[in-house]
Amino acid sequence: MISKESIINDLNTVRLQSPLVHNITNYVVMNTTANTLLAVGASPVMAHAVDEVEDMVKIASSLVINIGTLSKNWVDAMIRAGRAARERGIPVVFDPVGAGATSYRTKTSLQIIKQCRPDIIRGNASEIMALANEKMNTKGVESTASSESAINAARLLTKNPGTVVVISGPVDYIIDNQSLIEVRNGSPMMAKVTGMGCAATAIVGAFSAINNNFLLASAHAMAVMGIAGELAAKKSVGPGTMQLHFLDELYKLSDKEISEFFNEG
Amino acid sequence: MISKESIINDLNTVRLQSPLVHNITNYVVMNTTANTLLAVGASPVMAHAVDEVEDMVKIASSLVINIGTLSKNWVDAMIRAGRAARERGIPVVFDPVGAGATSYRTKTSLQIIKQCRPDIIRGNASEIMALANEKMNTKGVESTASSESAINAARLLTKNPGTVVVISGPVDYIIDNQSLIEVRNGSPMMAKVTGMGCAATAIVGAFSAINNNFLLASAHAMAVMGIAGELAAKKSVGPGTMQLHFLDELYKLSDKEISEFFNEG
Amino acid sequence: MISKESIINDLNTVRLQSPLVHNITNYVVMNTTANTLLAVGASPVMAHAVDEVEDMVKIASSLVINIGTLSKNWVDAMIRAGRAARERGIPVVFDPVGAGATSYRTKTSLQIIKQCRPDIIRGNASEIMALANEKMNTKGVESTASSESAINAARLLTKNPGTVVVISGPVDYIIDNQSLIEVRNGSPMMAKVTGMGCAATAIVGAFSAINNNFLLASAHAMAVMGIAGELAAKKSVGPGTMQLHFLDELYKLSDKEISEFFNEG
Repeated sequence: MISKESIINDLNTVRLQSPLVHNITNYVVMNTTANTLLAVGASPVMAHAVDEVEDMVKIASSLVINIGTLSKNWVDAMIRAGRAARERGIPVVFDPVGAGATSYRTKTSLQIIKQCRPDIIRGNASEIMALANEKMNTKGVESTASSESAINAARLLTKNPGTVVVISGPVDYIIDNQSLIEVRNGSPMMAKVTGMGCAATAIVGAFSAINNNFLLASAHAMAVMGIAGELAAKKSVGPGTMQLHFLDELYKLSDKEISEFFNEG
Repeated sequence: MISKESIINDLNTVRLQSPLVHNITNYVVMNTTANTLLAVGASPVMAHAVDEVEDMVKIASSLVINIGTLSKNWVDAMIRAGRAARERGIPVVFDPVGAGATSYRTKTSLQIIKQCRPDIIRGNASEIMALANEKMNTKGVESTASSESAINAARLLTKNPGTVVVISGPVDYIIDNQSLIEVRNGSPMMAKVTGMGCAATAIVGAFSAINNNFLLASAHAMAVMGIAGELAAKKSVGPGTMQLHFLDELYKLSDKEISEFFNEG
Repeated sequence: MISKESIINDLNTVRLQSPLVHNITNYVVMNTTANTLLAVGASPVMAHAVDEVEDMVKIASSLVINIGTLSKNWVDAMIRAGRAARERGIPVVFDPVGAGATSYRTKTSLQIIKQCRPDIIRGNASEIMALANEKMNTKGVESTASSESAINAARLLTKNPGTVVVISGPVDYIIDNQSLIEVRNGSPMMAKVTGMGCAATAIVGAFSAINNNFLLASAHAMAVMGIAGELAAKKSVGPGTMQLHFLDELYKLSDKEISEFFNEG
């Protein structure tokens, strides 16, 4: 359902249009998320004050909500921004970081899903399963469940018509209530750098801003993320070099590299 | 008005005196700002609690206020710190990140200017124009107006006697109510790394701490920033390598390199 | 009291068990702390909301509290988490960043020590002396006192039975109420990268999670930190490359390298 050509097409559109992606995200990854969005060709803005999130949504092309270091005021702003984004009709992408690790994260995630009805939810297998009310414990913000086992959980979340769920892992699964796309790019070294999942969510935010088929937009984003990660890993000796090569590879990713390295499901 | 020799002299003084620069800045750039200040030879401290900002100002040599991810408590602390810095007589540098993007940012910026009377304001063209009440929309935190068109706007802001305005862009303009200095160093790659503008503001903070001619101090800082960025870009293949080479080049910037690469206006 | 073999043994145990280290730390270093913990083989989680810190402590193997950018709500969460960790019996590691620079930092540090009774306190000489009520001023968050002069101060803090104090500097001193271990690894370049002290504290958090002899665990952690820093500095031309090589070296640190480079006190 996605092809080298469709990935290339969306990436070039992101680079051409440079959509403004409004991020309400966590402290750990704010810098790397902004750099990831710049590297892929989008324009990042970070704003979280209840006094301005609705105004920022008005000039944004998509909204990314990420609960990695949530607290009360931030959750208020996320919901306010999410509602404003829905009213305005721009895509809302949600990253339920650590859902299942604490009840506060799980409850907040469900509250955001209910009140903001995100178009796309991206998480690892544990997080998606926690959201779908599967009984399990996640170990912090890392995945301990297999991606495959989360597909059924994801199906429950896609019952909200139009919702797309992305389960990232060695194989990425992009799911709506009818389809399942697999993307098999990436490298184990990506898990050794903090915030790579959050970076993926941000790239999904950029692609959903320029392609309103959110299933395809998400799959294209995950392919670009995975290919850049794979190319970066080949040049890296550890997580330090990985982090910088990832930004470089994302920035200069060519049509030729996408054609050569895209690994269809 | 500035020369190779005067740039070299100020940089060496920063390295020798290692002034303590107190930053109340945004979440996105805190790490890179601290590293930039260390690389240029200054001592960074980040502190934003209303319970301590006035005490921190007492031991600092300059104060940098940056509203990149502002919210109510932070703005309270910024104003409190700014007033304490004025009373103590240390330079106050203000970075109105995203002014014009939301009314909250514009209003807060004007409030900070009124209550803290910053000695130096550094922004991109859009931000400076927004502050000067020109009718325009900024696109997020990036500049969409030309630097040249913001010079007239900057003139309005320098009517507070002694205020220096720095408009950064392909050409940097450093302006007070009498003079205009141009600095033509830098690289387009700098715009691909988040927080380079904030880094420039922090370096201005360091130089204003050791040279109380704020017009010259700001111009020297922008020249050092631009030369380090230019040298870094030559060694970089993308924004990842750019980020690290920038810190390396700033750290080891030599008199010879300044002499060779400084591009007078 | 520590040996090449005991360092290697603890590092391999960290890599094997990948303990979950719960960090309530500062904005400046959240990203680099998470990456440091991943590089050394541990699992980081960052969570600071009063609504969830106690739940997060329940699944963590150790707790690291760092006041680098403290404010009221965060201090409340730190104390709540620290008490929960004590009740649960997991190690509590405390980094009193900037103690002595403002009275708020000193008071908060003493409050955390009193209420959470940390097992391990890691700071630079100025911070440790400030805590021990020596009359001195620290210059921001950097050390201006010699490590040696802080040893007596540290002795006071170890009167809480079982408390270990780590004074980091050119020589690291690891102290309890009976013993003193010296570690002489590291490089001056480490001081040119922000958050290296905080990274050391986080590594101490990881090692204390797998070795309940906190004196030895801390010494092993400081040796690993220092050796990785030393190896990284050899490959670095400035603080930019230093930051990434540090993560790479930490990630791939071998038994052979530890044997070759460990510098006994």
